[in-house]
Amino acid sequence: MPGTERTRVRRKAKRGSLDTELIYSILDEALFCHVGFIDEGGYPVVIPTIHARQGNTLYLHGSPASHMLRTLATGAEVCVTVTLLDALVLARSVFNHSMNYRSVVIFGTPRLVEGDEKLTALQAVTDHTVPGRWDDARQPSESELNATTVVAIPLDEASAKVRNGPVVDDDEDYSLPIWAGLIPVSTVYREPVPDERLHPGVATPGYVENYRRG
Amino acid sequence: MPGTERTRVRRKAKRGSLDTELIYSILDEALFCHVGFIDEGGYPVVIPTIHARQGNTLYLHGSPASHMLRTLATGAEVCVTVTLLDALVLARSVFNHSMNYRSVVIFGTPRLVEGDEKLTALQAVTDHTVPGRWDDARQPSESELNATTVVAIPLDEASAKVRNGPVVDDDEDYSLPIWAGLIPVSTVYREPVPDERLHPGVATPGYVENYRRG
Repeated sequence: MPGTERTRVRRKAKRGSLDTELIYSILDEALFCHVGFIDEGGYPVVIPTIHARQGNTLYLHGSPASHMLRTLATGAEVCVTVTLLDALVLARSVFNHSMNYRSVVIFGTPRLVEGDEKLTALQAVTDHTVPGRWDDARQPSESELNATTVVAIPLDEASAKVRNGPVVDDDEDYSLPIWAGLIPVSTVYREPVPDERLHPGVATPGYVENYRRG
Repeated sequence: MPGTERTRVRRKAKRGSLDTELIYSILDEALFCHVGFIDEGGYPVVIPTIHARQGNTLYLHGSPASHMLRTLATGAEVCVTVTLLDALVLARSVFNHSMNYRSVVIFGTPRLVEGDEKLTALQAVTDHTVPGRWDDARQPSESELNATTVVAIPLDEASAKVRNGPVVDDDEDYSLPIWAGLIPVSTVYREPVPDERLHPGVATPGYVENYRRG
């Protein structure tokens, strides 16, 4: 996607990317994001929440009573950031320690979503979290829909930043007898725990049994 | 800690807590945080970065050239948020789907850290990431210290928000033949990968071999 002054990665610029497929893949793998906005009191607020991408649109949802949704529904500017951690990078020098990660930063102004798009957006959020869940679960009633605010942010101003690969130490440090290397990091989804009040005879669906991301 | 209007958890208030030990434990387990600040252009920015807590102080560090550190070093207000995901909560209704999580939101104004405290803070950040690493690695030179900015944020205005426990469905939905339950989520640290240029005979330290958090 085209870059703007805001999406230009300034530090470690070679880690920055405007590659749309890369941006989409990070947004799709990440379960949740951190949403930054400016409170009416003039101070910044950062709140974690679930997101979903559909095409070139990012959806967020929540209670109409939530501080975040109330602010976003008024069209306040937001910054949405998603971060996936892949490894700790232990260099010989403290200074060159790092992390392998994949992150996306999005700038935009949300618009309120209503009507048919609202249902589509909630399906996207549900299936982003657990693919296949929407068709299986009891879908929202009219009053539940009214008790949910959905906003959309166009993915027109977004950038990715990625570090991968090995330790990079200063030349003179490679001869030091200090352990260096990576500690790979993964998010794992463990064995599902059925609800105690599960209706008798309900089997664990495949999309729950084999849940994984990325 | 005492509450303020900003740290009052408004939505799902019973999930909110000002318990200092809980707040500390979440900050200590989380490897990284998301820092929100207002750019001089007047828009919000959210950046992932490593943090460390020492007593009632949170430290952040980075390059003096970074957008975030340049802004924070001027004493701009920040919001620092940390989120640990513990489970996906699959209810019978889409509406009651949720996540089990532990999060902390901190409001404050950073101060620039210099002198002896700067070294202590960098040790805290290093040992927050990999406990024991500071003593083992090559510690910062004078020029590396000058190439690092450290800021401190007092943990005076912070709150935690926690959801745990089982699915909560509407009474009439419990009879539906829909699978419900939890998918537990963990972060795992896999087998360390030694650097290709490791000095011969350097063994993997115990703090790397047995790395875990929380």
